[in-house]
Amino acid sequence: MAKAKLRVIPLGGCGEIGKNMTIIELGDDAIIIDTGIMFPANDMHGVDYIIPDFQYLRDRKDLKIHGVIYTHGHEDHIGAVAHVLEAFPDVPLYASKLTASLINVKFANARRFNEARIEHDPEVNIIYAGTNFNLGPFKIEPFRMTHSIPDCLGFAINTPYGLIVHTGDYKFDNNPVDGKRPDYAKLAEFGKRGVKLLLADSTNSDKPGWTESESTIEPAFDKVFKEAKGRIMIATFASLMSRVQQAADAAKKHGRRIAIAGHTMREYVQIAREIGYLDIPEELLIDIGKINSVEPHKLVIMVTGSQGEPAAVLGKLAAGRHRYLDIRKNDTIVLSSHPIPGNEELVYRTINRLIQRGANLVYDSLENVHVSGHARQEEMRLLLNLVQPLFLVPVHGELRHLVEHKKLGIEAGIPENNIIVVENGTIIEVDTHYVRKGERIPGGYVFVDGRGVGDIGRAVIRDREILARDGFLIVSVNVDKKTGKLVSQPDIVSRGFIYLREADNLLDQVRYTVESTLAENFSANGRRRDLIEESVGKLLYNETRRRPMVFSIVNEV
Amino acid sequence: MAKAKLRVIPLGGCGEIGKNMTIIELGDDAIIIDTGIMFPANDMHGVDYIIPDFQYLRDRKDLKIHGVIYTHGHEDHIGAVAHVLEAFPDVPLYASKLTASLINVKFANARRFNEARIEHDPEVNIIYAGTNFNLGPFKIEPFRMTHSIPDCLGFAINTPYGLIVHTGDYKFDNNPVDGKRPDYAKLAEFGKRGVKLLLADSTNSDKPGWTESESTIEPAFDKVFKEAKGRIMIATFASLMSRVQQAADAAKKHGRRIAIAGHTMREYVQIAREIGYLDIPEELLIDIGKINSVEPHKLVIMVTGSQGEPAAVLGKLAAGRHRYLDIRKNDTIVLSSHPIPGNEELVYRTINRLIQRGANLVYDSLENVHVSGHARQEEMRLLLNLVQPLFLVPVHGELRHLVEHKKLGIEAGIPENNIIVVENGTIIEVDTHYVRKGERIPGGYVFVDGRGVGDIGRAVIRDREILARDGFLIVSVNVDKKTGKLVSQPDIVSRGFIYLREADNLLDQVRYTVESTLAENFSANGRRRDLIEESVGKLLYNETRRRPMVFSIVNEV
Repeated sequence: MAKAKLRVIPLGGCGEIGKNMTIIELGDDAIIIDTGIMFPANDMHGVDYIIPDFQYLRDRKDLKIHGVIYTHGHEDHIGAVAHVLEAFPDVPLYASKLTASLINVKFANARRFNEARIEHDPEVNIIYAGTNFNLGPFKIEPFRMTHSIPDCLGFAINTPYGLIVHTGDYKFDNNPVDGKRPDYAKLAEFGKRGVKLLLADSTNSDKPGWTESESTIEPAFDKVFKEAKGRIMIATFASLMSRVQQAADAAKKHGRRIAIAGHTMREYVQIAREIGYLDIPEELLIDIGKINSVEPHKLVIMVTGSQGEPAAVLGKLAAGRHRYLDIRKNDTIVLSSHPIPGNEELVYRTINRLIQRGANLVYDSLENVHVSGHARQEEMRLLLNLVQPLFLVPVHGELRHLVEHKKLGIEAGIPENNIIVVENGTIIEVDTHYVRKGERIPGGYVFVDGRGVGDIGRAVIRDREILARDGFLIVSVNVDKKTGKLVSQPDIVSRGFIYLREADNLLDQVRYTVESTLAENFSANGRRRDLIEESVGKLLYNETRRRPMVFSIVNEV
Repeated sequence: MAKAKLRVIPLGGCGEIGKNMTIIELGDDAIIIDTGIMFPANDMHGVDYIIPDFQYLRDRKDLKIHGVIYTHGHEDHIGAVAHVLEAFPDVPLYASKLTASLINVKFANARRFNEARIEHDPEVNIIYAGTNFNLGPFKIEPFRMTHSIPDCLGFAINTPYGLIVHTGDYKFDNNPVDGKRPDYAKLAEFGKRGVKLLLADSTNSDKPGWTESESTIEPAFDKVFKEAKGRIMIATFASLMSRVQQAADAAKKHGRRIAIAGHTMREYVQIAREIGYLDIPEELLIDIGKINSVEPHKLVIMVTGSQGEPAAVLGKLAAGRHRYLDIRKNDTIVLSSHPIPGNEELVYRTINRLIQRGANLVYDSLENVHVSGHARQEEMRLLLNLVQPLFLVPVHGELRHLVEHKKLGIEAGIPENNIIVVENGTIIEVDTHYVRKGERIPGGYVFVDGRGVGDIGRAVIRDREILARDGFLIVSVNVDKKTGKLVSQPDIVSRGFIYLREADNLLDQVRYTVESTLAENFSANGRRRDLIEESVGKLLYNETRRRPMVFSIVNEV
């Protein structure tokens, strides 16, 4: 009997940042690492988020998925879990304690917002760094890594063809906020045992040096707390628990109480405190509804919206539209974050508006109030030297990051042919003597928009793009079936094209064009629609140099 | 008789980057500094560019505008010139030689593309650093500054209330490509004579240190030219002539010939060579149509599109849609530029696509192939120490930059109350003993979209935003006037909302809703339109959690 074939398939995270999901299959047995979402680009109009394309898994009905193992609790690694469960209700989930709690929050929200139809409440199996377990034919060794959220894991997966090591998102933080350091010894041990294939985070591969430890933020917070005359608001990602811990520590030190604004962050903080991942004494916390009972210089408020999201707390404050918070003179607002590429404009606009409202703003180009959660080049080199893999597949990054990671691999002594740069959906075949690029499975973006999953595609997005650029104009006409003449004045509906109240002249021209088109083609039954659309479209372009979508509705009466 | 009042009014450039334009008026006499455009933010759908709001100038019919003086030839300083001339046909223009040539190109293009109706071909008066001239009551002293384009000027303007100094865009480049250094002596002399008010560039006020000289790019180019095995393409702004000079110098040194792709850049290069601002020998240049006659390793191609613009050369190459150029293996592409905030996503996507097509990419996070054209904090401090102004108005920057510039001013010893941070349209009153913030004149964004100037406003943009997010749906119905019943099946047109071919079920529900709405309100003559729109809108939201624009057209027959 032929030996079962081993294949690694990244469905997401390779060639773009986000929706991380990797399949590892041995014959008919498979496991999955992470099931994340991706946030839409600026030109993916109206899309809420993007999930990996599961079609391949749906088609492989023979495949037994023994479980999904999670590296950590960020959205781009866990966000699609409800959609996965909807498609594969019986797949068991495995995650560290904090990650499991965050996954449970996702389920609760998915039920609340009716996002996915999940048959039964899934139970997430808790796994621990250093405690190995088996899933089907795979023996899995979770090990501790550090990132910008506690309780991160990497995985070593034992296969008949050798050891596969997956880093998850990581940086080598020698001084993490929770004191739990990366397991260098384990990585070195893997290296000694021999690693066939390393899948490693590439996010910061274009950045020289070593990413600062999370704890380097402490002095910057200290400075802000010393200088602030009024309230302090600190904006960061809802899930960035270590930052909340640091803010709480600074609050304690400087005699301030801390409040949490924003539903999700409050939920996360509560869970993290319950399971012991956040150490904030009860008396330090103050309910967001009661902050007015505290003097401004005795108060810190944690807020969401550090990416400029208009619907989050900071966005509402910038627009003066928050329900019970507002900006006052002497407020100091710290953006403890860095704009995700594509969000810069929104972030800086939010900063400018907050300044307009009288706040002092502190953000990462001014003070060291944020550090990245991902390894830079020196850490990547260290990883390669510890693990000494035979083959390297750079993951987690745009193509440009994967390519830079490859250069680092070559420098570290891995033969160029042993470094495989692939984009999402490319099968990586692992055999006794080689690892190589295989076919690419069909697949694409699955857009989630409102309640719809995958019901809009590129075509709808393209229409939205055109509508966004030039709007539309619709002419509705009643035509006498026999004479082909207008029975009444054409009805015109248009939005996003021109300011209609000042466009009387143009609208008259449209009506005239419709009339003369009909007059010239009085016997054109059935073709009137096209003829009107063509002539009106031409008119509008000639007059305005814009190309709104033009439709006509012709009633032949 | 009361002394004429002196007022400075920034119409653009204060509180945002771009469309720089400043009015200086003494009683009824005025001059204007720069008339630039601004590029639209990502959410200003369909807008080509934005010009300053001239309404104030139109309303001040008593005002005699003695001239527009230009600091340099970048779009954000000259781009609106055709629109200004359209509004004020007789205003004389004053600019340095290169700037004047670039303004003439703008006129030619405005005529070619019918952008503005200009009555007669304007003549731009050439001015020179060090040669003073008078405009109305103002004696103007142009002085040399350095930036990322040659032939830049700053202006000192003598007024009855003291000297006003305007830096224009600047950095202190001690080793500029053309050898023409900033006039430190003149700035010091102004300081000695006494400067009442300094208007100074704030763009990089959040960046510590000193911006590198343009010439620091030379070694980076040298390295690229040494290592490149095939063709080299260098992408930069069409107007960045010094970069073209550096590329040509490197080409000469390394035995390559240079071609220019892109209409605008070719035009600029031609002009700059003609008037002696570019030193590229004829035999070094090769026509873009003849590049196939040269071996790849003997060729450099200058291209436009470094901001990821899909319509520029690099964007077309990335999409594989350029008319006669394509990407080949071993091509090295240098992005000699930095993404303008808001463009990051587009730039990195372009880079990734070019890598997909097999090119090696070199960009500014990897090699020192670009430097900013704007002063950083140390240069700003030097400027303040040279000029020693009594009052400072930070210009050219978002609000956050102006605020940081203010901090530098305070550090330099200017009293806090003497530093006036204003946003566009705020009148700055200059008197014998004070400079203070006055009223804000009404005004806003004037959007240029196709041939329309100011014919779309916030309302149209808001509609485009809604259309971009969820599209629209229109129901057209024929109703019996008497019975209120449907005469035929409703006609539905929808785009950007949902993939219609797979939405039969939803469309049936729409038809059913229309029918039952009409049945329930059979006597609702005149209100049917609203009733249908409301009930269909509700249905669509409940089913999809999306809010497309819903319209109905009701024919009562």
